[in-house]
Amino acid sequence: MHGQMMQLPLLISSLLTHAERHHGEQLVVSRRVEGDVHRQSFRALAARSRRLANALTTLGVQAGERVATLAWNGHRHMELYYAVSGSGAVLHTLNPRLHPDQLTWIADHAEDQVLFFEASFLPLVQAVAPRVKTIRQYVLMTDRAHMPASTGIPNLLCFEDLLAAQDDHFEWPLLDENTASSLCYTSGTTGNPKGVLYSHRSTVLHTLASVSPDALNLSSRDVVLPVVPMFHVNAWGLPYAACMVGARLVLPGPHLDGKSLHELFEAEGVTVSAGVPTVWQGLLAHVETNDLKFSSMRRTIVGGAACPPAMLRAFQERHGVQVLHAWGMTELSPLGTAGVLKGHQLNLPEDQRLAVQAKQGRAVFGVDMKVVAEDGTELPWNGQASGELMVRGPWIVSQYLKGEGGDPLVDGWFPTGDVASIDADGFMQITDRSKDVIKSGGEWIGSIDLENIAMAHPGVAMAACIAAKHAKWDERPLLIVARKPGATLTREELLGFFEGKIAKWWTPDDVVFVDAIPLGATGKMLKMRLREQYGNHLLQAAGEVT
Amino acid sequence: MHGQMMQLPLLISSLLTHAERHHGEQLVVSRRVEGDVHRQSFRALAARSRRLANALTTLGVQAGERVATLAWNGHRHMELYYAVSGSGAVLHTLNPRLHPDQLTWIADHAEDQVLFFEASFLPLVQAVAPRVKTIRQYVLMTDRAHMPASTGIPNLLCFEDLLAAQDDHFEWPLLDENTASSLCYTSGTTGNPKGVLYSHRSTVLHTLASVSPDALNLSSRDVVLPVVPMFHVNAWGLPYAACMVGARLVLPGPHLDGKSLHELFEAEGVTVSAGVPTVWQGLLAHVETNDLKFSSMRRTIVGGAACPPAMLRAFQERHGVQVLHAWGMTELSPLGTAGVLKGHQLNLPEDQRLAVQAKQGRAVFGVDMKVVAEDGTELPWNGQASGELMVRGPWIVSQYLKGEGGDPLVDGWFPTGDVASIDADGFMQITDRSKDVIKSGGEWIGSIDLENIAMAHPGVAMAACIAAKHAKWDERPLLIVARKPGATLTREELLGFFEGKIAKWWTPDDVVFVDAIPLGATGKMLKMRLREQYGNHLLQAAGEVT
Repeated sequence: MHGQMMQLPLLISSLLTHAERHHGEQLVVSRRVEGDVHRQSFRALAARSRRLANALTTLGVQAGERVATLAWNGHRHMELYYAVSGSGAVLHTLNPRLHPDQLTWIADHAEDQVLFFEASFLPLVQAVAPRVKTIRQYVLMTDRAHMPASTGIPNLLCFEDLLAAQDDHFEWPLLDENTASSLCYTSGTTGNPKGVLYSHRSTVLHTLASVSPDALNLSSRDVVLPVVPMFHVNAWGLPYAACMVGARLVLPGPHLDGKSLHELFEAEGVTVSAGVPTVWQGLLAHVETNDLKFSSMRRTIVGGAACPPAMLRAFQERHGVQVLHAWGMTELSPLGTAGVLKGHQLNLPEDQRLAVQAKQGRAVFGVDMKVVAEDGTELPWNGQASGELMVRGPWIVSQYLKGEGGDPLVDGWFPTGDVASIDADGFMQITDRSKDVIKSGGEWIGSIDLENIAMAHPGVAMAACIAAKHAKWDERPLLIVARKPGATLTREELLGFFEGKIAKWWTPDDVVFVDAIPLGATGKMLKMRLREQYGNHLLQAAGEVT
Repeated sequence: MHGQMMQLPLLISSLLTHAERHHGEQLVVSRRVEGDVHRQSFRALAARSRRLANALTTLGVQAGERVATLAWNGHRHMELYYAVSGSGAVLHTLNPRLHPDQLTWIADHAEDQVLFFEASFLPLVQAVAPRVKTIRQYVLMTDRAHMPASTGIPNLLCFEDLLAAQDDHFEWPLLDENTASSLCYTSGTTGNPKGVLYSHRSTVLHTLASVSPDALNLSSRDVVLPVVPMFHVNAWGLPYAACMVGARLVLPGPHLDGKSLHELFEAEGVTVSAGVPTVWQGLLAHVETNDLKFSSMRRTIVGGAACPPAMLRAFQERHGVQVLHAWGMTELSPLGTAGVLKGHQLNLPEDQRLAVQAKQGRAVFGVDMKVVAEDGTELPWNGQASGELMVRGPWIVSQYLKGEGGDPLVDGWFPTGDVASIDADGFMQITDRSKDVIKSGGEWIGSIDLENIAMAHPGVAMAACIAAKHAKWDERPLLIVARKPGATLTREELLGFFEGKIAKWWTPDDVVFVDAIPLGATGKMLKMRLREQYGNHLLQAAGEVT
């Protein structure tokens, strides 16, 4: 027997409609590629999204077809988020940090029909356009005054001209909630990139769960600045969450350096921000070097990579900004866990509280998780037993686009490729990526713990720990370190810094100082490249390889 | 094209599973009918719910069959919430404040198979059992030691014996999320009661939306005491919300007087409570008479009837307890709106802020609302235009059980029977029930405004304003008032109190003092009965009716 409640689908367009009706005066503030700061109300956002939906119709975009973007965080990108998905097409956010070869491959694989891009990425588009097969129309996301005289891209359209030609009446279609809404490729380090195809249902459920007090805790009283790009897993869902709760949204455009961000935080009264640790490193360095402070920031959401404990302390103890450590993946829309303290943890001694916050956090409602041993048996939640993290939930991938890579699930669970433990309170802690773990004489050493210790040294700007081949132990930890400008840190000093902080046999065997750690397109350290370069370092040092 | 995310149904059992895994040590504290205070962890709650699900199987309860309860707020009732719905049957919460004739009619209409009840309601069950046709099994919700020697109810089972005989292994079935989960009858004042049949989907979506910061704002750090009964619209969903967020739940059992509640608030460190204004009147009177305070309470959710502004002030200004004014209906699961201030309202002068909080609030995400004129056209959101409130959303009724009363919807919207206005910020304010509005010479007078003014007078315990027949104006407002003990308030004094607070022609024509205002089974004033009794009062006073 079925219940007798209204059968209304969960649709992305309903987020926009809600924002327009209930928070019509709320603002989206965008620092644009053109250099200005643009402000528009949710009411205007909704009207322009409807114009854009009409424009997509005139461009011949059909339901289910992919419309790609190459753009920063800004209002035009947000209009595309709603117009494309809302009208029944699929928004495909391309990552401009990828190589033109990869972009060409991905756009063809996704069969993108139209590409909307910002002026910053014109050279990239010029490199891709002659080779990509499926894109039949290019639109430059700017106004007539900023259109370049000649681009070499045939029949290039101007975004604002397109909108000006349209009516702002458009009825959002009542789609099946399982309709595909958006597409994001994982930056796979092995094999071809794989497409994760979100649905309206998965997106709305993810948004509902993510705004709750035990997750990102977002309300109409917040001013939210996503540093995390809208081309990277939907900016962790914040463009959707802002509409659901009616929060002011501040979109930073192309300038993500510490100075630009801090100015925007202060000028717009930002209360909550979100980004990866490398961005926060830059921000903290700028703030501390220039003796600045955060006058409105209450909270910063750190994800994409583990938040080093030193960063946690810096934000909370020196700047009064609470850190919310979160974990997710492209395959999870992306939110999986959030490090929100439970009631009984609020009054823990500071060190213990920070230790809890340094973990990746508790599963948000909707996500089931477990850690399993190599034979697949579930491990206990004791904060010690560590194994591969598996997750399940209505906003988690069931299959990659076109079945690429086969069935990713194991008995209905998605294997994350992370090695983690879960404690009795349900706080998950990632000890490593399964491919980064160091297997020393049959025992596992977590590279992240060692990196966190190294990063806490005042002379270290960034540190990566990799498994280097070893004649006796198979693998031993090797530390690759970029010093802070002016720091004179030595190998002995740094290795001495580990004493008493870990078991002695976990201490790295050696340190290699480099100018910079290589970062990938999403800001993560490219450990695979480091392993290629330094994997034989210990053997060479021992004279066993030349 | 469909998205490729996991197809996992939204199920009530997933709330319990989440609570067990992530908040296993969190407590459900119950003051029981037996007189003791019982404590059990969510882990134990989950295990007992599984035992109970096994017991339902042995009782022969089939998927979709109705299992009824007559019970206070307590852990056994909560176990039934999860065991019955979770196993695929339908939980039917009967309202013990109804007359045995009504209960018999409702139980037969719902085709209840099994009735679980608490000892308080034995006389009621003894009155109903000989006449009700469908109930084939009765279970008394107590342990062996508290089973009465003789009840006259054939084959009466003991709840704890039932559980003791079962194993706590039970696999919650993977139901279609649209499966019916629970049933609640509206206390219709006209015609037969009508059944609202909730689904797993509607319940989980309602719970997700209700815990968000712009709705009830519930977290794992809260200690929640629902005064609103679990037999009345699922205690506003709080037994579900507590499991979703891992909040401690304090269930008050049968004693809802001010003294009992205040003791429990203080003993258990309750941070959030929820109930109807009449309950809070009793609580405030007790606290103020005895010069007590609230040491842990942060917030109280007031719904079921309009929160009088005087109560709002008393809680916030005298006791530091924030009032969250909310509105809902049985047909809405029940949450429709919540009076959560927006950012720009936080710094309003106190009087203006209180005026916003006195409104019923903004639609929670998922609920669409509009007010319409008598011809059905939508009225502007200007805080003035007032018409019937219509709502739409995935946890709103589409049809009553067995099609009773025909199609309740108008163009896909549910007409609430409330007359309301909506302001530019989306705050809805109910001015009346459409059947209670006073039509004076073609103009509408809202009875609630007049009641609120009367209730603000220190000599008034409770006030109802009804439409009394009038020779010239058709209808005029008549005030029915119960004085506070010892108060010597006169007609002239009270009518003078209205001066300057409303348009002169809104002033009630007369006042009738009574010992008590009659209340219905859900604590609401029975205005229909007052109209029957006093509807001709003005004509009689004018000598036009004898």
